[in-house]
Amino acid sequence: MDTFDIKELLKKSGEWLKGTGPSNDIVISSRIRLARNIAGYKFAAFLNKQETKEMVDKIIAATKKSNYLKADKVVLLESLDVLGRQLLLERHLISREHAEAKGIRALSFSEDEIVSIMINEEDHLRIQVLQSGFNLMETWRMIDKVDSELEASLPFAFHQHLGYLTACPTNVGTGLRASCMLHLPSLVMTKQINKVLQAIGKLNLAVRGLYGEGTQASGNFFQFSNQTTLGKNEEKIIDDLEKVIKQIIEHEREARIALQSKKRDKLYDQIWRAVGILKCAHLMTSQETTSLLSMVRLGVDLNIIKDLDRQKLNELFIVTQPAHLQLLAGKTISPKERDIRRAQIIRQYLKTINML
Amino acid sequence: MDTFDIKELLKKSGEWLKGTGPSNDIVISSRIRLARNIAGYKFAAFLNKQETKEMVDKIIAATKKSNYLKADKVVLLESLDVLGRQLLLERHLISREHAEAKGIRALSFSEDEIVSIMINEEDHLRIQVLQSGFNLMETWRMIDKVDSELEASLPFAFHQHLGYLTACPTNVGTGLRASCMLHLPSLVMTKQINKVLQAIGKLNLAVRGLYGEGTQASGNFFQFSNQTTLGKNEEKIIDDLEKVIKQIIEHEREARIALQSKKRDKLYDQIWRAVGILKCAHLMTSQETTSLLSMVRLGVDLNIIKDLDRQKLNELFIVTQPAHLQLLAGKTISPKERDIRRAQIIRQYLKTINML
Repeated sequence: MDTFDIKELLKKSGEWLKGTGPSNDIVISSRIRLARNIAGYKFAAFLNKQETKEMVDKIIAATKKSNYLKADKVVLLESLDVLGRQLLLERHLISREHAEAKGIRALSFSEDEIVSIMINEEDHLRIQVLQSGFNLMETWRMIDKVDSELEASLPFAFHQHLGYLTACPTNVGTGLRASCMLHLPSLVMTKQINKVLQAIGKLNLAVRGLYGEGTQASGNFFQFSNQTTLGKNEEKIIDDLEKVIKQIIEHEREARIALQSKKRDKLYDQIWRAVGILKCAHLMTSQETTSLLSMVRLGVDLNIIKDLDRQKLNELFIVTQPAHLQLLAGKTISPKERDIRRAQIIRQYLKTINML
Repeated sequence: MDTFDIKELLKKSGEWLKGTGPSNDIVISSRIRLARNIAGYKFAAFLNKQETKEMVDKIIAATKKSNYLKADKVVLLESLDVLGRQLLLERHLISREHAEAKGIRALSFSEDEIVSIMINEEDHLRIQVLQSGFNLMETWRMIDKVDSELEASLPFAFHQHLGYLTACPTNVGTGLRASCMLHLPSLVMTKQINKVLQAIGKLNLAVRGLYGEGTQASGNFFQFSNQTTLGKNEEKIIDDLEKVIKQIIEHEREARIALQSKKRDKLYDQIWRAVGILKCAHLMTSQETTSLLSMVRLGVDLNIIKDLDRQKLNELFIVTQPAHLQLLAGKTISPKERDIRRAQIIRQYLKTINML
C-alpha cells in the first residue's frame, strides 16, 4: 500500500486553520466525528492481528472510492515513531488514544486535512470533518455525505432501534460528536467564564481543552461538545449545540465590548505585552506560547493589531507544538532546546510584521 | 534673591547620569557628602524663623563665591509645592528629609548638578558631590575643595579632638558619608547577593536602595556607604570603602561571565523580554520600570543590546519617576494615569532604537 510521508505535512497547514468561516473571531473550528463499525466483525479491541489488517485494508479500499477522500493520504500508524504520531495528534488528525495505542491501525485523510478517518481506534471507523469557523451545519452536511459514500461499500453495524452500534455505549445511536473550539479571552478576563461553564454542565454539554478528551482548557481556548448521542437525530443534536454556542459567542462579544470601553488600558497592555514578549523572548514553553498567542489573537480580532494575518497566527499555534518543532528540526530535541527553538521560530514569524 | 525655576531641570539630565567614569558598567555613581554647621548658631532644628532665614542668606552668599558653584542655582524649598520638591529628590539633589521638612530651607547646586548644598537640613550645610562611575577619590578631591572654599567665608563648628560637630552624633568627626550606587544584577540572579550583603554588614558598611536612607534596594541597585565618620581621616574612610567596592565589582564581573557561559539562554531571555515589555507595554509602574531597565542595562553592559546609549538609558530611570512625569505633563496626575504616561514615554524613548 502506498503510504504518505508525514513530513510533507510540515510544508503547509490544514484548511481548518485558514481563519475564515462564520464568527471566526471567536470560533476557531467546528468539528464532527461519527463512530462506525463494520457488521460481522468484533469491535476493534477484540480483533486478532489478521482481522485488524483486514479491517485496515477494507476501509482504506472504501475510502479510495470516496469523492471527499479520493486524493487521500494513508498513514499506517504502527510504521510511525512517537514523533510522527504526535505530529498527527497536534494537527488534530488523530486522537491521543489512536496515537498511543499498539497494533495495526491507520489514518486516511484528505489533502486539505478537512476529512479524516481513523481506522481501528476504539471503533473500526472514526470519521471526522474539521472546518474553520462556526460551521456546524455545513460540517454536518459534508460528514453525512462522506458517511453515505463509505456506507455504500462498507456494511455498518446498525440496529433498528438503537441506531449505529459502537464500542462504547455512550456513542450508540448517532455515533456523533459535534464540537466547536472557541476562543473566549474576554469571558476569562472578566471572570464570567465560570458562570458559562456551570451553565454548560447543566445542559449536558462537555467542555474540553485544545486537544480534546482529557485535556484542560488552556490559553482561553475551550472546546464545547454534545454528550448525548442517543434519542435525538443528528440535526437536533447539532442544532441544540449550535444554539448554546451562539449564546456563548454573544457573551464573549459583549465582554469584548465592555473590556474595550471600561478596561481599555489594561486590555491594550496585556495584548501589547504579549506581542513584545513573543517578539523578544529567547525561551518559550508551549503553555506560555498558547497564552500569549491567545492575547495576540484577541488583539487581531479587535483590530488593535493590524498587520498580522490570522492564518499565520493560527499556524504559529501548530508549528510551535513539540512534534512539529522536532520534525522541522529533523531530530529529537530536549524540552529545554525546544523552548529555545520555539522562541526562535516565533521571533522569525513575527519579525517581518511591524506591529508597533 | 534670584531663584531658579526648577522646570528648567526637565530640559536635561545631571552630569552624573552620563554613564561614563571608571567601571561604569557596574558603578552608576559615586557620591560624597559632608555635614557642616556654622559656629555660634544652634543646630538647624533649634533655630528660630529669623535665624533660619539668616542662615540661608549667609550660606547662599558663601556659595556664590565658590568656583565650583559660581554659576549656581538657588532654590528656596518652602516656595516649591510637593511635586517640585519631589523632582529635586528624584534627581538626587536633596534628601527625602529635606523634601518633607517644613520651614525656611534651601538648595544651591551647580549647573551640571555635580555639586549641591542643602541648607538647613539636619545640619546647616550638607555639601554633596555626585559623579558618574566609580570615582570616589576624584569626588573626594572635589568636595574637599568646595569645603575649603566655603570654610574661607563660613566659620564651621569644629572641635579640636572630635572634629566637625554635627546635629547627629553619628556624623561627628569627618561629617563624611561616601557611597557608590552599584548595579548588581548578576549577583542577584546567581543568588550570591546575600553573601555579599552579609559580609558588608560585618565590615560596618551600610546598604541602601536607589533613594538613600530608608529605601529598599530595588531593580538590582544597591548603594554602599560608610557608617563610621570618627576615628579615621577622610582618605582612610574612602580608601576602605573603595577596597570593598572593588571586591564587589569583581564578584559581579565574575558572575556576569558565569551567566554568559552557563546560563546564556536564560540571560538572553530575561534581557530581551525586558526589552520587549518596555517597548510594548501600555501600563508600567515605577517599580517594574526599574526592574526591567535593570535587565536592559545589563544587556547594554554585556554588549547583547548594541544600539542603546547608556546615557539615554540612565535618563529613562529618572524621567519615569513620578514627579518628573507630572512636571513634564504640566499637571498632577493619578498613579493609574502615571502608569499609562510612563509606558508611553518609555515606548517613545525606545522606539527609535532597533534593538532586534
